[in-house]
Amino acid sequence: MTAFRKTHFPLGQIRRHLEPGPIVLISSAWKGQTNIMTMGWHVMLSFSPALFGTYIWDGNHSFEMLRRSKECVTNVPTVDLIEEVVGIGNSSGDRIDKFKEFGLTPVPGLVVRAPAIKECYASFECQLIDAKLIPKYGLFIWRVVKAHVAASVKSPQTIYYRGQGVFMVAGRTINRRRKFKPQNL
Amino acid sequence: MTAFRKTHFPLGQIRRHLEPGPIVLISSAWKGQTNIMTMGWHVMLSFSPALFGTYIWDGNHSFEMLRRSKECVTNVPTVDLIEEVVGIGNSSGDRIDKFKEFGLTPVPGLVVRAPAIKECYASFECQLIDAKLIPKYGLFIWRVVKAHVAASVKSPQTIYYRGQGVFMVAGRTINRRRKFKPQNL
Repeated sequence: MTAFRKTHFPLGQIRRHLEPGPIVLISSAWKGQTNIMTMGWHVMLSFSPALFGTYIWDGNHSFEMLRRSKECVTNVPTVDLIEEVVGIGNSSGDRIDKFKEFGLTPVPGLVVRAPAIKECYASFECQLIDAKLIPKYGLFIWRVVKAHVAASVKSPQTIYYRGQGVFMVAGRTINRRRKFKPQNL
Repeated sequence: MTAFRKTHFPLGQIRRHLEPGPIVLISSAWKGQTNIMTMGWHVMLSFSPALFGTYIWDGNHSFEMLRRSKECVTNVPTVDLIEEVVGIGNSSGDRIDKFKEFGLTPVPGLVVRAPAIKECYASFECQLIDAKLIPKYGLFIWRVVKAHVAASVKSPQTIYYRGQGVFMVAGRTINRRRKFKPQNL
């Protein structure tokens, strides 16, 4: 596993990493415990402020930790972490320490207490700014307050969940920049 | 362009096509006009009922058409439609008929009045069930009421937007089914 060296990334551009809809690892901390969950139900909601929504099932051990701590780090793994992604998604933090169990390195957040995951190429520190949609839709509205991305990673081999245990890995890129209106870039 | 032959697809499994976060084409109809928009800010919210959320900017011509008609079709294009996806995203329906302009074929919805796009391999008919989050978050909560998917398409070459005019095309698949707990499949 690669322990990425990440640097500050502009909040106004985080859509580049989140809009494509990759599987993310949500890390949390509450009352001296940390946890990680695998998650694919998320959405960009605003550029500035940088808002991000996540659906989280209340059966997840992370649910109460996130709701109470009002913080998380959204980490984006690449395909070299596929076994960890699957393992984390198929185990529960009420019985194991997932950082230890899966050999991942917690990195203290700069703004939030939840730890980032060193082995993910991008980490976004988030604060819960609206909990009102949780009861009806399981929807947490986060404000991303700090972004860390490994500048060395140009075309991240992010992974996408297709259900039934099948993942898709990011493929080739196509640049259509010249076909865009400047205001749409 | 392929005019896909789609058949009924179970609503409880639409996550297979929407969770990976591909660029979608949202089609709408209102007062005798139709429109299409390109969109990547969406999220699965529930299996049953099949709920799906979309962020839509109020500067889009589709915004009022969707809000008033309370219906849409969410169509999933593949990479052979990349030029249409870019063209649709960089033009406005207040000046052109996008179906005509981009040579796409509208197919009447079975449940909703908004037309599906024949050249997309998957189409999901949606009804707006909650408009309350639109003013604050631009978030439309849709219930998918009918799903149509081309059974012939096994690993769709869906496309993902990375910002700045750059798209990523779906790559290889990895099957980790045997590592999943049955209740997580």
